[in-house]
Amino acid sequence: MGASLPRKELFDIPEGVTYLDGNSLGVLPKGAAARVTDTIEREWGQELIRAWNSAGWMDLPRVVGDRIAGLIGAPEGSVATGDTLSIKVYQALDAALKMRPDRRVILSDNGNFPSDLYMAQGLIGTIGKGHELRTPAPEDVAGAITEEVAVVMLTHVDYRTGRMHDMAAITEAAHAAGAVMIWDLAHSAGATALDIAGSGAEFAVGCSYKYLNGGPGAPAFIYARPDIVQDIDPALSGWLGHDAPFAMELGYRPAMSTERLRVGTPPILQLAVLQEALKVWDGVDMGDLRAASMRLGDLFIAEVEARCPALTLASPRDAAQRGSQVSFAFEHGYAAMQALIDRGVIGDFRAPDIMRFGFTPHYIDEGDVVAAAKVLQEVLDTDAWRDAKYQTKSRVT
Amino acid sequence: MGASLPRKELFDIPEGVTYLDGNSLGVLPKGAAARVTDTIEREWGQELIRAWNSAGWMDLPRVVGDRIAGLIGAPEGSVATGDTLSIKVYQALDAALKMRPDRRVILSDNGNFPSDLYMAQGLIGTIGKGHELRTPAPEDVAGAITEEVAVVMLTHVDYRTGRMHDMAAITEAAHAAGAVMIWDLAHSAGATALDIAGSGAEFAVGCSYKYLNGGPGAPAFIYARPDIVQDIDPALSGWLGHDAPFAMELGYRPAMSTERLRVGTPPILQLAVLQEALKVWDGVDMGDLRAASMRLGDLFIAEVEARCPALTLASPRDAAQRGSQVSFAFEHGYAAMQALIDRGVIGDFRAPDIMRFGFTPHYIDEGDVVAAAKVLQEVLDTDAWRDAKYQTKSRVT
Repeated sequence: MGASLPRKELFDIPEGVTYLDGNSLGVLPKGAAARVTDTIEREWGQELIRAWNSAGWMDLPRVVGDRIAGLIGAPEGSVATGDTLSIKVYQALDAALKMRPDRRVILSDNGNFPSDLYMAQGLIGTIGKGHELRTPAPEDVAGAITEEVAVVMLTHVDYRTGRMHDMAAITEAAHAAGAVMIWDLAHSAGATALDIAGSGAEFAVGCSYKYLNGGPGAPAFIYARPDIVQDIDPALSGWLGHDAPFAMELGYRPAMSTERLRVGTPPILQLAVLQEALKVWDGVDMGDLRAASMRLGDLFIAEVEARCPALTLASPRDAAQRGSQVSFAFEHGYAAMQALIDRGVIGDFRAPDIMRFGFTPHYIDEGDVVAAAKVLQEVLDTDAWRDAKYQTKSRVT
Repeated sequence: MGASLPRKELFDIPEGVTYLDGNSLGVLPKGAAARVTDTIEREWGQELIRAWNSAGWMDLPRVVGDRIAGLIGAPEGSVATGDTLSIKVYQALDAALKMRPDRRVILSDNGNFPSDLYMAQGLIGTIGKGHELRTPAPEDVAGAITEEVAVVMLTHVDYRTGRMHDMAAITEAAHAAGAVMIWDLAHSAGATALDIAGSGAEFAVGCSYKYLNGGPGAPAFIYARPDIVQDIDPALSGWLGHDAPFAMELGYRPAMSTERLRVGTPPILQLAVLQEALKVWDGVDMGDLRAASMRLGDLFIAEVEARCPALTLASPRDAAQRGSQVSFAFEHGYAAMQALIDRGVIGDFRAPDIMRFGFTPHYIDEGDVVAAAKVLQEVLDTDAWRDAKYQTKSRVT
């Protein structure tokens, strides 16, 4: 058994707020500000350029990567951090297509997060050899894995519905058809028990500002299966992926490790905050966390269905097929979510009609779930969402 | 006349240190730690996901870009920020090659920072159509601009020698030959007076952790000439470059502004620090700054040549052809630089034999320059650099 959950005392959560949006931006771990202040004042301010060595800045992406590796079932040294998730998707896709030069199809699904699809479209445009992106419905992906497919790129947990792909089965099907497998773990890392090495997938990518609480714009990560690392021909061949960055050679020579998936100068301040944030995982058993997450989601579904007949469940009812979120469809979902947020229950909205609620067992318990459902019921029963102030869309929804 | 320089009181500089490495990592502006603490505790901690709207996070890359635009002679709205410089080089190169589909040559020089060359090599590999990267010596670039050249990509100020290309003349030659022009301003932004719009160049890129004091891993920037922005077909087509990111459409549709050069979720903590750091430029006249920088460099050359006959000037003697650094070649430069750093004068070393000194008029004055030259003389006169402890190379040199 690991540390018992929740551990609300590790976080600074605003008074009066029930935060069900840790699937979008995780809450603030208590040590974050002190850590970055130390990084700024002592390391940057006093050590200056020397801090790249003396404060371990150059190794920080690898050290943080190793900590994330432990949360996704990957071995030490197999995860590189930095950049954004979109950039990491591009790296993985480019490497995968180069591994299957005779094939022209990228298979994803129409529930994938749009940026993953956009990056594929951009890469296809740059290569300019008529590659094709196919996006069947999530439930039709398995049947669409043919021998035309170069790479299967899927987000493990659907950002809108929370529907979870069967990682082992789809990876096996991809490999049986000779395709490379890329998993986007944006909504899985820190939310579900993962065995990325056991899946056999060639690549996994993810972000760290959701369930990993790394803060706004926290660095992304990329996993590459250790046996293929030395065959990867990086598109984004930046100097910190070079075997000897400070030799300043004119020709690119990739590092012989996962470091070849590094690109430019790492975002040290964001990495320092992320490293601090990852400490909340010390002693946590991912099986326990997953079990708690399933219980919270089941409870929320039961409470909302009993209290709010106007809402339609948009997530799988079976917790085993669901990530750590529950979504409900409601025609006036945008306004209803604004009314809910105004009452201290923070979830979010995804077009066209999805009210999305994330469950983070680190800082959400059964009491929070029931309380949130009651506020939602009040918003609906009183038509509070009809207030004009809840109708105007913000830039970020 | 702008604010008088130096303004050391705006920075936290360690006692007893003369910092001549602001061309690698700028010093700490005083407000940085307080600013990021506020961003973390109040914005992230209390506002949580709402801060994307309420704290202006979504607009921060543009707001910071506008401030940088003012320092490089670019109009408002023409600079996007985020990612690393290597990524921005890739974006500019890819866009440029797409603008000249019938040409196959990327022209740079062998004094360019290696990562720029590596990114070009990576892009060439991904496109796979036989593009060629040519890297003549810096002084031979102008003569190498032929009608085969699709794009000329140069770093304005050479990272090793400080030699400065003639931006106006080379841009004009590139355009006369029908080539696209990309300037890397890594060693120019905040160091020299720039008129990037007046140059007519299509693209400029740069980083913000050197002369702009944005801190370790601070975000990069990219300028695109306003009249071509809507023709750019982004390779790195991330969701935040989409015209309507939160519409969650399946197809990429680029924003109709420079925002199309954004990629993924912006690094808010680094951007907040950078925004704070850019305040030190308020009221600074770039002509005054450039004049001060030239005086400091000239003085350092005179002092070192008088005191240290073993060193050979590796920078242009004419300040008008030099950026804001002075380099000397010395066979034992690595060890000598370590001995110098040990004595509180911080410069850096670049392979194979370059001792590099940056002059940042914000926080370096004539007294610092003379004092640094005296310490260098002492290191050489006493053979202090022969000490065994100065021979072992650190990971970062």
